[in-house]
Amino acid sequence: MSGSPIDPDNGKASELSALLKRRGFFFPSYEIYGGVAGFFDMGPMGSLLKDNIIKKWKDRFVIEEGFLLVDCPSIAPEVVFRHSGHLDKFSDMLTRCTDCSEPFRADHLLDDIIENADSLSEDELFTALKENDVKCPNCGGSLGPLEEFNLMFKTYIGTGSDRPAFLRPETAQSIFLDFPLLYRTNREKIPFGVAQIGKGFRNEISPRQGLLRQREFHMAEGEFFFDPEADGFPAFDTYRDLKVNLVANTDPDNSIRKELSSAVSEGMICSEVLGYFMGVTHSFAREIGIPEDRMRFREHLDTEMAHYARDCWDLEVLTSYGWIEMVGIADRSAYDLEQHTKGSGQEMTAMRRYPEPIQKEVTTISVNMKVLGPIFRGAAKEVNDAVSLLDPAAVKELLETGEPVKVVISQGEVEVPPGSLSIATEEKRVAGERFTPHVVEPSFGIDRLMVAVIEHAYFEAEKSPLREEASDGEGPYRVMRLLPSISPVKCGVFPLMNKDGLPELAIPIEKDLRKCGLITYYDHSGSIGRRYARMDEIGTPFNVTIDYESKDDGCVTIRERDTGIQKRVPISRIVNVISDLVSEKIIFDDLDQPVIS
Amino acid sequence: MSGSPIDPDNGKASELSALLKRRGFFFPSYEIYGGVAGFFDMGPMGSLLKDNIIKKWKDRFVIEEGFLLVDCPSIAPEVVFRHSGHLDKFSDMLTRCTDCSEPFRADHLLDDIIENADSLSEDELFTALKENDVKCPNCGGSLGPLEEFNLMFKTYIGTGSDRPAFLRPETAQSIFLDFPLLYRTNREKIPFGVAQIGKGFRNEISPRQGLLRQREFHMAEGEFFFDPEADGFPAFDTYRDLKVNLVANTDPDNSIRKELSSAVSEGMICSEVLGYFMGVTHSFAREIGIPEDRMRFREHLDTEMAHYARDCWDLEVLTSYGWIEMVGIADRSAYDLEQHTKGSGQEMTAMRRYPEPIQKEVTTISVNMKVLGPIFRGAAKEVNDAVSLLDPAAVKELLETGEPVKVVISQGEVEVPPGSLSIATEEKRVAGERFTPHVVEPSFGIDRLMVAVIEHAYFEAEKSPLREEASDGEGPYRVMRLLPSISPVKCGVFPLMNKDGLPELAIPIEKDLRKCGLITYYDHSGSIGRRYARMDEIGTPFNVTIDYESKDDGCVTIRERDTGIQKRVPISRIVNVISDLVSEKIIFDDLDQPVIS
Repeated sequence: MSGSPIDPDNGKASELSALLKRRGFFFPSYEIYGGVAGFFDMGPMGSLLKDNIIKKWKDRFVIEEGFLLVDCPSIAPEVVFRHSGHLDKFSDMLTRCTDCSEPFRADHLLDDIIENADSLSEDELFTALKENDVKCPNCGGSLGPLEEFNLMFKTYIGTGSDRPAFLRPETAQSIFLDFPLLYRTNREKIPFGVAQIGKGFRNEISPRQGLLRQREFHMAEGEFFFDPEADGFPAFDTYRDLKVNLVANTDPDNSIRKELSSAVSEGMICSEVLGYFMGVTHSFAREIGIPEDRMRFREHLDTEMAHYARDCWDLEVLTSYGWIEMVGIADRSAYDLEQHTKGSGQEMTAMRRYPEPIQKEVTTISVNMKVLGPIFRGAAKEVNDAVSLLDPAAVKELLETGEPVKVVISQGEVEVPPGSLSIATEEKRVAGERFTPHVVEPSFGIDRLMVAVIEHAYFEAEKSPLREEASDGEGPYRVMRLLPSISPVKCGVFPLMNKDGLPELAIPIEKDLRKCGLITYYDHSGSIGRRYARMDEIGTPFNVTIDYESKDDGCVTIRERDTGIQKRVPISRIVNVISDLVSEKIIFDDLDQPVIS
Repeated sequence: MSGSPIDPDNGKASELSALLKRRGFFFPSYEIYGGVAGFFDMGPMGSLLKDNIIKKWKDRFVIEEGFLLVDCPSIAPEVVFRHSGHLDKFSDMLTRCTDCSEPFRADHLLDDIIENADSLSEDELFTALKENDVKCPNCGGSLGPLEEFNLMFKTYIGTGSDRPAFLRPETAQSIFLDFPLLYRTNREKIPFGVAQIGKGFRNEISPRQGLLRQREFHMAEGEFFFDPEADGFPAFDTYRDLKVNLVANTDPDNSIRKELSSAVSEGMICSEVLGYFMGVTHSFAREIGIPEDRMRFREHLDTEMAHYARDCWDLEVLTSYGWIEMVGIADRSAYDLEQHTKGSGQEMTAMRRYPEPIQKEVTTISVNMKVLGPIFRGAAKEVNDAVSLLDPAAVKELLETGEPVKVVISQGEVEVPPGSLSIATEEKRVAGERFTPHVVEPSFGIDRLMVAVIEHAYFEAEKSPLREEASDGEGPYRVMRLLPSISPVKCGVFPLMNKDGLPELAIPIEKDLRKCGLITYYDHSGSIGRRYARMDEIGTPFNVTIDYESKDDGCVTIRERDTGIQKRVPISRIVNVISDLVSEKIIFDDLDQPVIS
């Protein structure tokens, strides 16, 4: 059999893409109406595979790492994205053909001409397009000026146009908004993680890379809140010695292999927390079947970094489209919580407890609402809230030097009259201090991981490994070597013939397997070879055949997909055996009595 | 303890709603920015509970019933909803206050005045508002004229405004569009079901009923495709004898208790297929904890029926808001497939095989493209496709009588020149005939079911059932009696003291439970009574306490939530015992050695 990954030039990619549609993995949406670029439907096999990957992710992040799971709306009002920065900064540069008016993402037009075109500034892009004399790929026309195009889908909530809203481009924002509540639900313990699995939406200018660049996609994001001043991160010990492939932004052309601990201590990776989640990500990717030697972590160039990120490493996997980002692990520092505090006036802090309570000089501001009320009327409370977020020591200094104290409220910047403020300083026993947590975010593109998993599981052979197994349909013999735990269908159930009492044995076996939560495929027609071939194509790891001997010896045959080896197992044990094989509690070698090899 | 359901007048509802927010079940979205009506966040407990309900749904529909799972985008281009009928008909009547301009859903203003206001026509609504002299509930102002308001959220795909699109109001449409592909994937066998779980979106005019009327909500829908001419439906036998409460639209004021088989044979329920899925729905609702006596099926009034439905029965559950629709089970007949065939020209049929091939006179039309091409140019293929959907016998008659043959293509109605058509009739051996399948759709509102489950699980008591158990926080002692299989946290793990070697015993127990896929809660602080109380509030069915005796006898205590009874179990067995209790393989009574009762 020939190996993975798939090279688009050798024909396997198109072979695979036809199989994926025919077998119900995924296919373009709305095809009967001509299709719409950037939208895909997951068919029966794709949906199960995707759900299995998500289940693994939840096992890892929610059950093992203990992240709190949340589930928030896709639609959010404009105010959220005004403060998160997405309204201003979440955009791509667009240019239109002056002849055919087709729109293009400007940096993509330079993809084959210069490297990292997506990290160029507007001016650099403009110059590069000009210098390279780039024309419209559609009609050869001249390209128009660059425009900034915001990638969020816009809509309106309610009956008018006074409440603009957007579909979320990432699931993260709702988690930040809920931080105060989640921190309380977590009984004010920090660090802690919050996870969300759901759809993300990006109105891509001209999406063209299949499932890798969709306008609507499945994400699984974790936001890990921690104290940036805490000493070390004990959990990092788990991955301290893990060797990974790293492409740092100081040397973007070379991948080096290094232990995570060295990368952190040399300052290449900015913290043990970031290093830890790179370790978790690496281990998760292995667990769903991505080979170690097809993975690397690449650090974003400074010009490529999202507006919220202080540092970011992508897990990239080598696919038929080249090295593709699957997971982004970003250090978002305190950016988002601080932005939403500014935007809403809501404090978003956690408590840093001292080892022992200490005596401390504490300065507090109090506001006299009797003075503030008549001046600001309805806005007085807002002014009060804004004052309470100021640093009391700084206000004290302003008052002492006679400088104005200013705050920003919804109607703009206003000056707070000094007579409404009083400053008190006293010695107090304090148990800790408040701080804005930092955030490390591992953000997984589930559809992309699915593509990577499929490409690395797909193998072709001239002919079947067993003489009686025929290819189902035209072309080579195809096998998808998905791990049992993520394969969509776990077990085929085949009565050798649809008569002579064999279905009466087979039907209860299928029923019992399903009762045990396993997806099965019952097939009683055609040659056994073709039935195996059909299951091999969709990656079914095991098939059970009920033959004439079964009536005498009470045993059935289990065939393992990757070796074609068959072993006989008593019907009474079959559900436990398949279940243990699928959950990887046992391996096929643990069974005895091979009948064919 | 006092019983469920919650009556909004006795204070329990507000008690519960505070608990649900404090404990992280669900709460209004975007609260730090003042909130937006109709949007809710699921917190850590709500997300787990919702996922557990969805898992049960998948177990039932995908694993047990064998429905094919798909997962399609939320955004769909306008053309889909033009042909599905949603663009024209998926709307509510809106009226605005002429003084304060607040918009209202007209029928909701009549809710307390007349029954079934939502089934009134536009004229009837207008008259009813006038006759009852309904004023603006906000400011007492007069109400303006009625306007039709489409409930779909609108957006645009791509860079211009030439590709309008909508957020799906139901997940069903994509399933219909994919029918031809899914039928092939299913190897052209019928009947079969297709399931989709995901978000639905409805831009409600003024949503006010919490989780029951959201603008974005979780749905789980099944579309069951079948041959309406098939004799009976053998699977119906499973529920034939099931007695259910039925409110037929011929007698909408009375609920009668009846076997499903009688209701079908009397013609009250229109088919065995519909009756079967009412049975499945009933059994599912029981399985997630909704009491039999709080459920009924209500048939839609003719005026209330959705534009696509031939008949529809709602599963309603009695909640603190009254009888509320949880599931709609609609007979959509061939409506959607036929609409999309008309819209796209794509044939959406299945094959009805004859028991034996028969000799039959078959009329076929063939189109001479050499004639059609020069006349219609680029549209010739479209004309050809449209002709192929015509009934050959009818075309034959038109040609014989000299009437024009007309078809509708994207540029409008066109006449097909008789010279391009030839009709052939021959005797053929045919194996079957094509037909458009009918559809029965069970459509589940997951959030609503979650509310119903919580309300029926919630109990209050003056004080704790055990003397040492204190209420956590103010107010009465609260217990959520969720079934173990759907409760968010499965097991609390409590070392009696956070010292003396007890954590060393407790931590590995928690780790092992999590390895086994169980969500746990580790708590080492405060009195055991308060720790139990905290778990009782979120419905954790079992708690394990590690005490000083554990060090000697290697046993720990398991406490059952609903009885407060505690039993000792060896540490070596604890993971299996908890796992079997949660999956309901064993019940608590199966354990021996009670220590306190």
